[in-house]
Amino acid sequence: MKTAEDKPAGALAIFGVGMIGGSLALALRKANACDRIIGYGRSPASLQRALELGVIDEFRTDAASAAADADVVVLASPLATTEPLLRQIRDALGEQAIITDVGSAKGCIVAAAHRALNPGQLRNLVPGHPIAGKEKSGVDHANPDLFVDHLTILTPVPETDPGQLRRVRQLWEVVGARVVEMDVDTHDAVLAATSHLPHMLAYALVDCLARMQESAEIFKYAAGGFADFTRIASSNPEMWHDICLANRDNLIVMLDRFRGRLEEIRAAILHNDGPLLLEIFTRAKQARDDFIDRFPGRNYGPE
Amino acid sequence: MKTAEDKPAGALAIFGVGMIGGSLALALRKANACDRIIGYGRSPASLQRALELGVIDEFRTDAASAAADADVVVLASPLATTEPLLRQIRDALGEQAIITDVGSAKGCIVAAAHRALNPGQLRNLVPGHPIAGKEKSGVDHANPDLFVDHLTILTPVPETDPGQLRRVRQLWEVVGARVVEMDVDTHDAVLAATSHLPHMLAYALVDCLARMQESAEIFKYAAGGFADFTRIASSNPEMWHDICLANRDNLIVMLDRFRGRLEEIRAAILHNDGPLLLEIFTRAKQARDDFIDRFPGRNYGPE
Repeated sequence: MKTAEDKPAGALAIFGVGMIGGSLALALRKANACDRIIGYGRSPASLQRALELGVIDEFRTDAASAAADADVVVLASPLATTEPLLRQIRDALGEQAIITDVGSAKGCIVAAAHRALNPGQLRNLVPGHPIAGKEKSGVDHANPDLFVDHLTILTPVPETDPGQLRRVRQLWEVVGARVVEMDVDTHDAVLAATSHLPHMLAYALVDCLARMQESAEIFKYAAGGFADFTRIASSNPEMWHDICLANRDNLIVMLDRFRGRLEEIRAAILHNDGPLLLEIFTRAKQARDDFIDRFPGRNYGPE
Repeated sequence: MKTAEDKPAGALAIFGVGMIGGSLALALRKANACDRIIGYGRSPASLQRALELGVIDEFRTDAASAAADADVVVLASPLATTEPLLRQIRDALGEQAIITDVGSAKGCIVAAAHRALNPGQLRNLVPGHPIAGKEKSGVDHANPDLFVDHLTILTPVPETDPGQLRRVRQLWEVVGARVVEMDVDTHDAVLAATSHLPHMLAYALVDCLARMQESAEIFKYAAGGFADFTRIASSNPEMWHDICLANRDNLIVMLDRFRGRLEEIRAAILHNDGPLLLEIFTRAKQARDDFIDRFPGRNYGPE
């Protein structure tokens, strides 16, 4: 006999049924962890597609109406849509309705919630970030196994109710994720280093090569290292536009740190300083090899 | 009945029986394309290992002796060893003995050959670069299929004899590579863009993170994108030290171009210039997607 505890998500409303939102829907469905999934989004065609694919049970084109019937609202649309959406659903949300999200930056979500929600609703706020994904966008790329063995980071605010936090944790655990909690600022600083900075480097590299006169010739001779290195430059531009601006301060700090390291390498090359180059490369190789050795069981699918 | 044409490599001497040199030996052996493979290297233990693995038939610890018996000498040791090795073997080389290599920069090979060889020997010089490899070093990682469907670039000099060039082309074709020819300067400019610059970015990124106080915490939350992006930072430091210094001028040009692109992104983030960020990311995504679409059949194994 199923108890309420078996379906931690109850009725779920997913705002933004793209690759991540769609994957979460499929994964929860596969785990039999929710009763009903309501989709909301900007594009009726995309919602219709999600319905046809069996990702959602129904869709709404009115945000408040989607939220009104939900036990859990998951924001999976671009970060910049957070505040307007929260304003639209604020008065429709049930007293116990959880508000969670999958955004790659968390400070901006918390700030938007403070501005847009009633203070009493902050107890239902559980910001989250699954460290999983791929460079493909859209519900057609949704995958029920996307989160298996990947980390999901939850960043509760001081007001977050421990019971609501537990329910969101359970929701991610049933889809196979390993859940960790950290504070919002730590999350944004860590992700600026491990994800947001590398994306900027990949975009800058591809843009640099694409703008060279000989770019056709150059791309012709690029090999696997280049394909790997630039995979993340195929990510969704709108999403990354939002992430950059949302996590601006941390990202600028990391860009400046990176610039310092690259300048050191440039100067060593320019001045034929072989010992310094060898020292830098050896230290970096060691750090990277250690990183791979330390987390051998990790699913290194794209984030 | 086999003819001489069936074994284009004849007796092969491989100088530096590591991952690349060892893979070429295994591949030529698998294709039955050479009579005998002689190894030469700095480490007797490593040569002994190559012998045990069946990668080479015998080894020498004297470079001139290894070269004296060879129809083809393949330099597969770090770039900085090229000139001293050529000086050691110059007087031992047979009149028709081909001198080729697998180095990632070609101008430095040609310059070393001009300094170290007799002018008449330049007709036997066929510089080459297989765009294949992986971040693992050493003969234990040699793989006979490493070059299948990968490009090998040959950069003949004006003095190169067309017949010798043809023999080296055939040698790469029998191991499955697609051979293209280009001039030395074009090779070094293209590779600075597609390979040498990305390696510097990966080393600089890992070094940047490794030197942060919170590096343990940071690496803990890195995901697949980071693992992909930094794979090339696990490459051999000595090899990359040599490549940087050998292709210094082209690499400095590319580092400066990249810096310009990254500064543009940094300024756009700092000044909240969303439209510019969206434009850059969209252009980069388009270029990267086009690159993958245009070469769908390419083997994107690591370079």
